[in-house]
Parts: sequence; structure tokens; C-alpha cells
Amino acid sequence: MKFKKMIVTGATKGDISSDYWKQINQLTGEVVFIGSEDLATLEKNCDIDCLISKFNPVDKHMIDMFPNLKYIGVYATGYGKIDTEYAKKKAITVTNVPGYSTESVAELVFGLILEELREISRAKSSSKSGNYSEEGFTATEIKGKTFGILGLGRIGTRVAELASTFGAKVLYWSRNKKKLRDKSIKYASMSRVVSQSDILSLHLALCDGTEGILDKKLINSIKKGALVVNTAPMELVDLSALEKRLAKRDITFVLDHSDEMEAGDLKRLKKYENCIIYPPIGYISKEASIAKQEIFVSNLKGFLKGKPDNIVN
Amino acid sequence: MKFKKMIVTGATKGDISSDYWKQINQLTGEVVFIGSEDLATLEKNCDIDCLISKFNPVDKHMIDMFPNLKYIGVYATGYGKIDTEYAKKKAITVTNVPGYSTESVAELVFGLILEELREISRAKSSSKSGNYSEEGFTATEIKGKTFGILGLGRIGTRVAELASTFGAKVLYWSRNKKKLRDKSIKYASMSRVVSQSDILSLHLALCDGTEGILDKKLINSIKKGALVVNTAPMELVDLSALEKRLAKRDITFVLDHSDEMEAGDLKRLKKYENCIIYPPIGYISKEASIAKQEIFVSNLKGFLKGKPDNIVN
Repeated sequence: MKFKKMIVTGATKGDISSDYWKQINQLTGEVVFIGSEDLATLEKNCDIDCLISKFNPVDKHMIDMFPNLKYIGVYATGYGKIDTEYAKKKAITVTNVPGYSTESVAELVFGLILEELREISRAKSSSKSGNYSEEGFTATEIKGKTFGILGLGRIGTRVAELASTFGAKVLYWSRNKKKLRDKSIKYASMSRVVSQSDILSLHLALCDGTEGILDKKLINSIKKGALVVNTAPMELVDLSALEKRLAKRDITFVLDHSDEMEAGDLKRLKKYENCIIYPPIGYISKEASIAKQEIFVSNLKGFLKGKPDNIVN
Repeated sequence: MKFKKMIVTGATKGDISSDYWKQINQLTGEVVFIGSEDLATLEKNCDIDCLISKFNPVDKHMIDMFPNLKYIGVYATGYGKIDTEYAKKKAITVTNVPGYSTESVAELVFGLILEELREISRAKSSSKSGNYSEEGFTATEIKGKTFGILGLGRIGTRVAELASTFGAKVLYWSRNKKKLRDKSIKYASMSRVVSQSDILSLHLALCDGTEGILDKKLINSIKKGALVVNTAPMELVDLSALEKRLAKRDITFVLDHSDEMEAGDLKRLKKYENCIIYPPIGYISKEASIAKQEIFVSNLKGFLKGKPDNIVN
């Protein structure tokens, strides 16, 4: 079994290496790419039975454009922009690529935290300019800190394990009160996690009910002096409330999903020295990149063989 | 019991906070400070019964200047520059301050590693200048790497535990084949640890037999592409051999003991982009600073009460 025609949106050829394209080309008769600018002028197409999307929205309208669509392969972990319910009604299977970036993101979280706690980049450039004195550098330890985690998916769980080994007191909140084997990592209400944490790391998926979940009340309750790290989508956060809190200069907020943000929103946050914005370098490790392509292609093969995996609808 | 006169060398009043000076002043009749430039003109003094040194050498000559010296308090963990044997012959107790910086240094080791593996400072400044693209950024994970540790004191042990939780294959060498409870952390010969590690972290104390221990042969055997982190004294490393290896641009060497190095040596190494030099920010965490002063003062009190602790000779 093969697909007849695959349409790829929100991803470019370069997102997947030639080795994996070779495998994909054997699974479909044809591949076409459409840019986001072409979405408005999309015409009905009965040949397309497979749609690949990275971060682009796939709504009812789009699904209706392809009457014979059987499969939507999301080339990402998050699938919040796909109308999975409507796809289900139309008997279209939607799969995602989970877990590939767990280690990559979890390790970066500690890189970002240690950068803030230890002023590593400032120390590096100080030495580079010939000043080897530690005078004026401050440092605190992860050990002994209250380390809060919102969202206990794969990445949240991994961050919790690492924080616990670093000697932090780990608190977490997860929607379904998920339990962990490690009893030293404790469940608490969202408001307790947010207000008690010295270090707070966000690991919620973007879906119904999580958009703007870090609302004004919660943002105002963040502990003074806390370090908040968000390697998840910024849609989780009420930006106006965050901006007001940043203006008080009593928290530090670090984020890396800048690629998915509006230019205006980036500009608003960039004004604040205590808001540290990174390019989206969380999921880009060599190992994650290989795992992502491996899982994605295996999803396609699984569906064609009638043994679909990683279905999200 | 009190000391009659305390002489402090290689440390300034600012090294210890006023709270702890209050306690120290109650333990001695008098305190005098001498700078390294005054050491040459030092005169015999029979009043001095207590000598405090940070990193300054305390040799036979100096010990002989103080015929009534009873106690040398090293305000540091390392005591390689103190002639402890001669002090012992003269019935002088030497104590150090062990363990205070274990977490501070171990955490920094991972900060320095993640900075190199994830290009955090470059990403930070890229965003700061308005470029939010991850293009051109590379990243690899600690997980799955072979992580070598030379020296299994407190810091080496802690780094081994953390590396193991990060999912690295941990190999270590220690002089007395020290055993660890965690069986996943494996002992190996020094040459195997050095030649097989993707990440190599040095945690040996500077003492007889460790000076220049990372010699030409070992330096040449470091794996291509490896990241070497030295948060221990650079006296452990043959600098000429390191310089030659750095010139091949096939390893990255990170160090933070720049304060103890000769200006000429720093200049030699600084030429190489693959040699990353930091100010000595390993041990400076707030928590470590408090613990250091606490242990130091408690050493003084313990000696005066006839219950000396942390004796190193």
C-alpha cells in the first residue's frame, strides 16, 4: 500500500534529511509542498490522501478541501493547531511524533537555568576580554531550591527526575494528578507550585484548557526572585499580565519558543532585561533530529500497513 | 582558650563576612594581614600562634619565622601549597575547609558542558540582537555520551552521580580505585577514561603525584571532538602538550582556575578558540560561601577546644 499524493504544509524539504526522503518517496506516488501563503488559494483536490503539517493549522476548511484524505501526519509533538475532532469525524487518522525531543529539551532546561544562576555567558565574555576576576559574579545552587514543574508529560517527568538529583525540592502539578514512582517529587495544586517555586519550569502541551493557563492571578503570585523557564509554547502565558510582572523586575522569565510568537509580542517582552528570549533551540539536538525523522517515517509506514502508531484522535 | 596573634596571608578582610569576623575576633587577641609582597621582608615573630592562608604558599622558611606557631588554618579545600609535613614535624596542626563547594562546582560543571553542547550564550546574544532563528545552531545531548571523570573525591563523585542521571555512560579513574555504590558508574584505567570519553571532567586534587598528571601522552590520546572540562587547578595539565593539541582544533578545553595561572600561560591558551577560559566562578555560590566560613570558623573553635576537625597533616 502506498499513498497516492502527499501534501506537505508548514515544512520544507530541508526539514527532513535525504535518507528519510528516500524512504518517504517510496511510500507515496507524489509529493507537493505548499507554503502558508498558498493556503488561501487552495483548490479542492481529490488525489490527496496524505497531509503532512509541521506547525501550520489544519482546520475544517482545509480538511474539506481534500475529500479523500485518510491520514494527517504531524511532523511535531504538539498537534494543538490540528482539528483532530473534525478529522476523526471524517475517519482521518492523525498521528504526531512524541518523545523525540524529551532529552534535548530537558537538558536545555538545565542549561538555561544554570546560565541564569551562574552568569556563564557573562563570565565567558569577561575572560575573553582579558578580565579573569570573579568579582561581581553571583551564583546560587539548584540544590535546596523549590523547583516547580507544571505538566508531567515526558519532558516534565524527565526535568523532575533531573531536578531531584540536583537536590532540589520538586513540586509538580499535572492535570490528571499523574503519580510518579519517586516519592520525593511531590504533587501540589497549581497555585502552590507557582507561588512556592524558586525555579519554575513549564511543560504543558498547548491544547483546549491550557491556553493562557498561566493567567494574571498566577503570574502575580510567582515568588519574588523566582526564575521561570518556559520551553513550551508561549500561548500558555497571559502576555499582558507577564509584561506587567516583568516591569516590577522581581522575576526572571526565560523562553525559547520565539519562532511561534508574533513580532509585536516579542518586541513587547524584549524591552525587559529580566525576560531572556532564545531562538527555539530546545528540540534541535542531533539525537532528537534523528529520532524525530525515524518516528515520523515509521508512523507513515505503520498507517499504510494497517498498524498505525502514535494516533492522537 | 584563645590565640594570641593571628596572621592572615593571601586573603583579605573582605573574604570573610563581618558576622564571621565577629566570631573570629573573639578567638584571637589580635589579627594582622600581610600581602604576598610583604612575605620577603617578613621578620621573626614569637607572638604569632595562628596562621591563616588562602592560596599563598606556606613553606619551611615561613613556618620557621613563627617559633610559637600552633595552628595553620587553610581557608580553602586545596592545601597543596602548604608544607604540611614540615608543619607536622613542628607539631603544628593544619586544617582545611573541605566539601563546602561540592554542589557549587558540580553544578557549574554541567553549566559549562551545556554551554558548549547547546551554544547557549551565542543563542542568547543572537536573540538579543533580534535574530530568533535557530538556523546554524548545533546541539548534542549528554545522554548516551561516554562521560569520564578523573578523581573521585566529593566533587568527582557528585559529578558522576549527575552525569549518570543525565543518561551518560560514566567511567572514572581514582588513585585508590575508590568504589561507588552505583554500579552503573564504572572504574577504568586513566588511559581508557581519557581516550574513550566524549566528555571528560577533571576532579583531582593538586598534590605530589598529580602535578602534570594529564601529560603529553594522555593529552594526545583524548578522543577527537571531546569536550574536556577542568574545574581543578591547571597544574594538573602539561600546558605545552595541551597547547599543541589545541592547535589541532579537534578538542575543546574549558577551564575556570584562571586566577591561579601565570599571565603568560593564560595568553598562550587564550589564542585558541577551542580553549574556553572562565574566571574562577566554580566555588562562588552563595550557599558555598556561607558553608566555607561556617566550616573555617568551626575549625578554629574546634582546635582551641582541643577537638580539632578537618586536620590534613
